[in-house]
Amino acid sequence: MELSDVMRTCRAIRRYTDEPVSDELLMDCLRLAVCAPSGSNQQKWRFCILRSAKIHQLLGKTYKQGWADYAAQMKLERPSADDASRSARFIRSMFELVENFDTVPAYVMFCALRTPFMEELYTGASIYPAMQNFILAAREKGLGTVITTWYRLCEEELKELVGVPEGWVVAALLPVGYPKGKFGPIKRRPAEEATCIDHWDATLSNPE
Amino acid sequence: MELSDVMRTCRAIRRYTDEPVSDELLMDCLRLAVCAPSGSNQQKWRFCILRSAKIHQLLGKTYKQGWADYAAQMKLERPSADDASRSARFIRSMFELVENFDTVPAYVMFCALRTPFMEELYTGASIYPAMQNFILAAREKGLGTVITTWYRLCEEELKELVGVPEGWVVAALLPVGYPKGKFGPIKRRPAEEATCIDHWDATLSNPE
Repeated sequence: MELSDVMRTCRAIRRYTDEPVSDELLMDCLRLAVCAPSGSNQQKWRFCILRSAKIHQLLGKTYKQGWADYAAQMKLERPSADDASRSARFIRSMFELVENFDTVPAYVMFCALRTPFMEELYTGASIYPAMQNFILAAREKGLGTVITTWYRLCEEELKELVGVPEGWVVAALLPVGYPKGKFGPIKRRPAEEATCIDHWDATLSNPE
Repeated sequence: MELSDVMRTCRAIRRYTDEPVSDELLMDCLRLAVCAPSGSNQQKWRFCILRSAKIHQLLGKTYKQGWADYAAQMKLERPSADDASRSARFIRSMFELVENFDTVPAYVMFCALRTPFMEELYTGASIYPAMQNFILAAREKGLGTVITTWYRLCEEELKELVGVPEGWVVAALLPVGYPKGKFGPIKRRPAEEATCIDHWDATLSNPE
């Protein structure tokens, strides 16, 4: 697929079919992930494909709880099935994601070695580009995924199960599967509104 | 171009021709940048196209000094012109980058609103995917760029010049121009060496 077509249809996917996802297919995506830049081209990254029953169980329980707490705090309820509004569809997809999180075909966890003497933000500069390459490569192969961070609620236990060494951070955990729904054009605010020239207030729609 | 061809030839480019780079072309890249995911799709990002003489002057001076300090610390000298080794080519490209940093056609600065109650690492998850989309889109259009962070040496002055509001972080600054050299296949360690299944030590070449 053309680069721009992949980017423009790379929706977050939260509902997956039961169809298994092979290691070989994930490796094809990871082979493109490693094409991404990293600080001084050091490639201090590790990609963990997670499939074990123990990990599914831990993450399933954790994500269910994470969403339950969030939904309670935000007073979110499951929308009625005939509510086709944007927010209803999003909330429904979140319910479906967490309720089935313990059975998603696979997870890919993105880890990075913390950069000494640098703010933690910059550790991200050496792992999230690779993650984004992975997401785009997965989309091109018809695989759906979404960035999640609720593993933070069970991070110590997860790190111990996987054996993540001292000094490494978990940057993201992505469930991966074939989408139940469809890929389609994504919606964003126009880039012009988020872009300025030389000064913060000089946007293209509002030049100084 | 095909997604995988873009990714596999997306080298860091540090040497640029004098050919100007239009706002419209940068906007085309930024329109693909905003297709990237961000936390809760909040799109709390701002892209600053920097072109003013003052900013060129400040960054030129700062990057020259940053490299001089680094080179002194690492005892790096300009390699002789006939040294075609990998490291010689890299060091030469760094010298050329900083010596011409005050005349690169444009810079694009990537800013993100700091996420409250989250470690700063996760702020990166909402800006570096957009930056990576920008880098890939630029490559596809024949533009070269490289991630830099030495602006940190003049960050307060730069933020004041641009008018970056409180609470926003500068995540990266990318010089952009048409490459003097060529795009070509990138070199990375095999993804297999960086991937494990269920446990850190169970790499594909070394399953448990």
